[in-house]
Amino acid sequence: MGKVRKAPENFVRPDEAGTVFAEARAGRRDFIRGAFAAAATAVAANAQAQQAAAGEGDPNILELPAHSKGLGQPVVTDGYGKPSKYEANVQRRQSPGLTQTKQASVSFAPLQSLFGIVTPSGLHFERHHQGWWDIDPSKHRLMINGLVKNPKVFTMDEIMRLPAVSRFHFIECGANTGMEWGNVAVPTVQYTHGMLSCSEFTGVPLITLLEMAGADLKKGKFILAEGADGSSMTRTIPVELITSGEVLVAYGQNGEMLRPEQGYPLRLVVPGVQGVSWVKYLRRIEVGDMPYAAKDEAIHYVDLMPDGQHRQYTSIQECKSVVTTPSGGQILLDQGFYNITGLAWSGRGKVKRVDVSVDGGRNWRTARLEGPVMSKCLTRFNLDWVWNGEECIIQSRAMDETGYVQPSYQQLRAVRGARSIYHNNAIQSWAVRANGEVANVQLA
Amino acid sequence: MGKVRKAPENFVRPDEAGTVFAEARAGRRDFIRGAFAAAATAVAANAQAQQAAAGEGDPNILELPAHSKGLGQPVVTDGYGKPSKYEANVQRRQSPGLTQTKQASVSFAPLQSLFGIVTPSGLHFERHHQGWWDIDPSKHRLMINGLVKNPKVFTMDEIMRLPAVSRFHFIECGANTGMEWGNVAVPTVQYTHGMLSCSEFTGVPLITLLEMAGADLKKGKFILAEGADGSSMTRTIPVELITSGEVLVAYGQNGEMLRPEQGYPLRLVVPGVQGVSWVKYLRRIEVGDMPYAAKDEAIHYVDLMPDGQHRQYTSIQECKSVVTTPSGGQILLDQGFYNITGLAWSGRGKVKRVDVSVDGGRNWRTARLEGPVMSKCLTRFNLDWVWNGEECIIQSRAMDETGYVQPSYQQLRAVRGARSIYHNNAIQSWAVRANGEVANVQLA
Repeated sequence: MGKVRKAPENFVRPDEAGTVFAEARAGRRDFIRGAFAAAATAVAANAQAQQAAAGEGDPNILELPAHSKGLGQPVVTDGYGKPSKYEANVQRRQSPGLTQTKQASVSFAPLQSLFGIVTPSGLHFERHHQGWWDIDPSKHRLMINGLVKNPKVFTMDEIMRLPAVSRFHFIECGANTGMEWGNVAVPTVQYTHGMLSCSEFTGVPLITLLEMAGADLKKGKFILAEGADGSSMTRTIPVELITSGEVLVAYGQNGEMLRPEQGYPLRLVVPGVQGVSWVKYLRRIEVGDMPYAAKDEAIHYVDLMPDGQHRQYTSIQECKSVVTTPSGGQILLDQGFYNITGLAWSGRGKVKRVDVSVDGGRNWRTARLEGPVMSKCLTRFNLDWVWNGEECIIQSRAMDETGYVQPSYQQLRAVRGARSIYHNNAIQSWAVRANGEVANVQLA
Repeated sequence: MGKVRKAPENFVRPDEAGTVFAEARAGRRDFIRGAFAAAATAVAANAQAQQAAAGEGDPNILELPAHSKGLGQPVVTDGYGKPSKYEANVQRRQSPGLTQTKQASVSFAPLQSLFGIVTPSGLHFERHHQGWWDIDPSKHRLMINGLVKNPKVFTMDEIMRLPAVSRFHFIECGANTGMEWGNVAVPTVQYTHGMLSCSEFTGVPLITLLEMAGADLKKGKFILAEGADGSSMTRTIPVELITSGEVLVAYGQNGEMLRPEQGYPLRLVVPGVQGVSWVKYLRRIEVGDMPYAAKDEAIHYVDLMPDGQHRQYTSIQECKSVVTTPSGGQILLDQGFYNITGLAWSGRGKVKRVDVSVDGGRNWRTARLEGPVMSKCLTRFNLDWVWNGEECIIQSRAMDETGYVQPSYQQLRAVRGARSIYHNNAIQSWAVRANGEVANVQLA
């Protein structure tokens, strides 16, 4: 159901758009009733309705579909269920040619086909530095060492007996929307923003493990997190993030054990921080008194600035949003009513407000946020819109609880130039053409 | 990772239980540090730790596991990902012999292996009356008729263009925990409570569709919801539930389209009400002026009372909870610290409090609720516990925001007898034997 497809003629008439907008702005409860009045009265009650509701073919032939007459599939056809065959096109996808090998690569989540805030684990974006593994949890260990009184090695069983917490958080790769820095407008929201997912994580606060090991949190100002895959992935994390209790050693994701591509059986969850710090296949935490300057923070994941210098250790994902429908590659097949929907998030707390423009940023309307709005978590927004068939530019602009406002490309490039790869949180623009095609465009 | 497995000796010593409980009751921040102090000091720092953390075999042989040296699997190995092969045992399961055919049957969600509140869609419980179907969404229709000015037939595309909302809700079959009425203690929480799941649903409030059809909501006091499968499933729903905006015509579940077993492409979501009313493969809504007394409400899903009469139309799922770990069939392989965890829910609003007893109901401690606590949604609770190796009975008791307290079996049977099948929300008891085995028991 990825595409926006054809609705019947006059479903909502564009010439009602004025009234509809006025009512929407006034927040009138009967906005929708108004918007659809013409469409509703145009539909006559008739005998064909019953047949059409049966769901099959020619409404003049009174025949029930097979599924209304027959015996369906039995329970537990799959002990672990799968999506409908009609949704087979909803997949995470690799961007052809983006990387030289498929082991040091990325697959993008199909944001244009997703609803709400939970990303199904089967569609969660992937970022591997040396491929993924399905590690035997009975053999996996987590060591805590460094500035600790009692270095410890935990089995999975030991970790899973400890006091657990469950929390919803987004994870975004620092390189998400990276192609757009250089004005390479990739075609769909899957490729512009699809290194973004959101899950309910379950695990043990890292502070619990550090306390059990007797960590010296006066001298110890940083930890190094190390993964067990072949990429020697290590990242420095400041202790302040950990003492707040936010950083988790997680084994659960969306109700079940982590998926192998997401670090099974154990990964670090570092809310608000770019994905690379959420070390997968976590096997070691070292407590130290200075940043470790590991390869993936000293050389990679840095931002090249206009003056040739680079920003380092800029790991918090700033406030950002994107409209997922209508979005690039979709086609509006007729005029009339649409539900504009999208996602907003901030690495610094809760999303406070999302405004949407359908005229390239001249006028903005405030979208409706779906609850619960959670800290460092995706927030779904929705806005009523009637398309009059003319060309237009759709944008969203998020604000977080710190008061930070998502910048335009103009604002962002004024400070950071156009040579970066990472940490692009600029406002995304989708152009709707008169023929209904939606395209990725960048406004000057 | 379903079972609670062996942890090293002295992980937490049972003779510390007194201190640990006292500290827990006092709510001291360093409870955990205290609880684990002995265990921590018992672990010496040694060269083997590094090797053990590498995750393989004999710690005297310094060899990294294959996954720390090699090239892993490429991205998009599956466009739609799957759980680890080590989790293959975590499945929904049919209770052998419970029904005569697998098309009019049930599969239970493996609650003992789940975390947090989101049920992975692949593990969502199933209840079919005549099997499940994978219906072509381009052919599916929803008709609104009855006491409406303008009967309407919606395509999926039309519905998906309407203003959408996303909300987290539990769904529980009215017959969940049904075997326990007659004191048939089924062995595991999967079979006692596994007709329970929780998802983020996305869809259109039913009131929107009724308003578009010009429903007469003065005369119209009830609606009839009808499914498109072969079971002729129809259920009456009072209009008050719909005008509140809570009842949804949903197409999205946990971020993606509904699964076929859950009514793809369209199902009714009736928060707080038993699952049978959440009509799957929804194809028709009729507005009427009296209850329809359909077969699945007049004859089935009624409660046989001690005096031979039966309760009808008792569709709200009352406040209930269950400990999922430790639970029946699990084995505690040693004494010491455990995280007691479980789920609580109410069809009347938010869970307010969950108390846990480890002595068969004589003493209760208040558990920690994981946020966000949402209305008519599962709530995850956790409680610290040190097992001293003696026999004990673990129970949980939930209270909701209306002040309703989950009853004991004694209280429930005093009113309802023991001949019902449906609407059993009594307190569940798990007995921990001295050998660590956990069993389902019913207290007199």
